[in-house]
Amino acid sequence: MKAIIHIGLKPGVLDPQGRTIARSLGDLGFSEVKQARQGKVIELDLAGEDITIAETRVKDMCEKLLANTVIESYRIEIED
Amino acid sequence: MKAIIHIGLKPGVLDPQGRTIARSLGDLGFSEVKQARQGKVIELDLAGEDITIAETRVKDMCEKLLANTVIESYRIEIED
Repeated sequence: MKAIIHIGLKPGVLDPQGRTIARSLGDLGFSEVKQARQGKVIELDLAGEDITIAETRVKDMCEKLLANTVIESYRIEIED
Repeated sequence: MKAIIHIGLKPGVLDPQGRTIARSLGDLGFSEVKQARQGKVIELDLAGEDITIAETRVKDMCEKLLANTVIESYRIEIED
């Protein structure tokens, strides 16, 4: 089974990486870029067959290690 | 218009971040994790209305700045 976890900064949290990307793209002539935000994606290969259990476990992984829930939000997709 | 760019390491490229995540999750008792890979997502707010032009421009941004095409592959989604 595969879990895909999307982690991004919560709205309102300053995103210096995103600002740097937007400015650099502007400097390269891509003047249509108004804003950029950067997030991360973690793909996990999981043993086991039960999607409900996997979802609970992956949520636990996010809370304990993968996401900094003070400033980041996350979204989990489970694929068979 | 919005562009979402998914950037990940090409298959076969060593992913030390992913290995660290997998090992740390194992240490925390999540023994079902067999493998982990980490990628990034960049969201751009773009001026303009033409999706075809936006796709070409964003591909250009990836080749010139956003992705290291020696070791990374990317996928672009354009949303209205």
